[in-house]
Amino acid sequence: MNAILELLSAHRTIRRFAAGAVPDAEVAAVVSAAQRASTSSHVQAYSLLRVRDAGERARLAELAGGQRQVAEAGAFFVVCAEQRRHRLVAERAGKPLVANLESFLVAVIDASLFAQNLVIGFESLGYGVCCIGGLRNSLPEVDGLLELPPDVFPLFGLCVGVPAERPLPRPRLPLAGVLFEGRYPADDELRAAIDAHDAEMREYYAGRGSPGHDWSGGVSRKLSAAHRPDLPAYYARKGAVLE
Amino acid sequence: MNAILELLSAHRTIRRFAAGAVPDAEVAAVVSAAQRASTSSHVQAYSLLRVRDAGERARLAELAGGQRQVAEAGAFFVVCAEQRRHRLVAERAGKPLVANLESFLVAVIDASLFAQNLVIGFESLGYGVCCIGGLRNSLPEVDGLLELPPDVFPLFGLCVGVPAERPLPRPRLPLAGVLFEGRYPADDELRAAIDAHDAEMREYYAGRGSPGHDWSGGVSRKLSAAHRPDLPAYYARKGAVLE
Repeated sequence: MNAILELLSAHRTIRRFAAGAVPDAEVAAVVSAAQRASTSSHVQAYSLLRVRDAGERARLAELAGGQRQVAEAGAFFVVCAEQRRHRLVAERAGKPLVANLESFLVAVIDASLFAQNLVIGFESLGYGVCCIGGLRNSLPEVDGLLELPPDVFPLFGLCVGVPAERPLPRPRLPLAGVLFEGRYPADDELRAAIDAHDAEMREYYAGRGSPGHDWSGGVSRKLSAAHRPDLPAYYARKGAVLE
Repeated sequence: MNAILELLSAHRTIRRFAAGAVPDAEVAAVVSAAQRASTSSHVQAYSLLRVRDAGERARLAELAGGQRQVAEAGAFFVVCAEQRRHRLVAERAGKPLVANLESFLVAVIDASLFAQNLVIGFESLGYGVCCIGGLRNSLPEVDGLLELPPDVFPLFGLCVGVPAERPLPRPRLPLAGVLFEGRYPADDELRAAIDAHDAEMREYYAGRGSPGHDWSGGVSRKLSAAHRPDLPAYYARKGAVLE
């Protein structure tokens, strides 16, 4: 394995950060490198908003469900899919900007490819990161706090800082449950991969003092309820079209 | 800049590939490393389908709009967001699987973070890659050809192979047009960043024998029409809920 595969393999989410800022020059270097990610038809439908104000970060930490690392990490960013620049360009050209599910998906995928490059880039400098999907708990409030313009679709937050912990890596599904040859496997084969993952996750949770927990249990509990049902209305207000 | 930021910065899309397969052991190593990407609540809502059959790859190349690299690259994969495993887990637990825009977004973001790790992993081994959004031109046909089960949402293809070209890197928006401090900039500041990008893109296109083209022109033309309007119906048939 080379140094880059080792870096990818060493990823774990960091939630406790030591003091220590992330210098602007490093942020600029990482963002510039991350912008090289593939982008559909070169539309570059993403932006990154850095939030420095301590009061705003404390409020965002609350809005994300009480995630202190949002306030405490060396740096905090909001990853946004967006068509704001597209809107300005279309207005100037006197053309319509046609939004639909495809254009929204392109923006979400573009932003996510860019964001994973950010993660890798910051980790390559020794920082730890934590993605904050919890920002989607309260997007209207996040939006009001940060005064986001139309055509901007915040997706998740990103904490970056000096790690103050080195948690055990959380196991992933076995390769046979994720990488398929030619066709999707039959359900029984998928269930076998899930069983293997459950066994590994029971060991992992037992080692963390939560015996009896596994992946299936967590997933089936989590996904049996509707989460964040206000997302469609929020994104629609921002200008997204989901049809 | 370290070796990893250099790798990210060196990315360019490769569309011409030399002969040469991508060995299974390398695919396994890259996919395993890529699985370490962050995943929302550990749901791991993605799969990777490798297509080897030459006839199927030729057909997929057509469906993607005549992109020969789909047939010619050392390896071709379909990146899927998915809830197939979730469905099986929920059924076994006797619980409902509640799909909505949030669960679809989670799967798209999870799959994209994973996919960017794949890109980085394959590039770290010296391969070139090309993302094939054109697969979304004809998802029902792609789906039928590959016999995808319900709860699987193909997003894009990924060509991987030995590069037979080294194209000039396509410029990206200036940092001031993408990374913002505290607040989104006023529209005039965004327009200035767009103007700078247009100037750079005119040089880039002129160097490739297409003088007069720029980013604004391309984007405003591209986005003034509705693309892939059948996506919502297709994903809904697969079990996605976009509300």
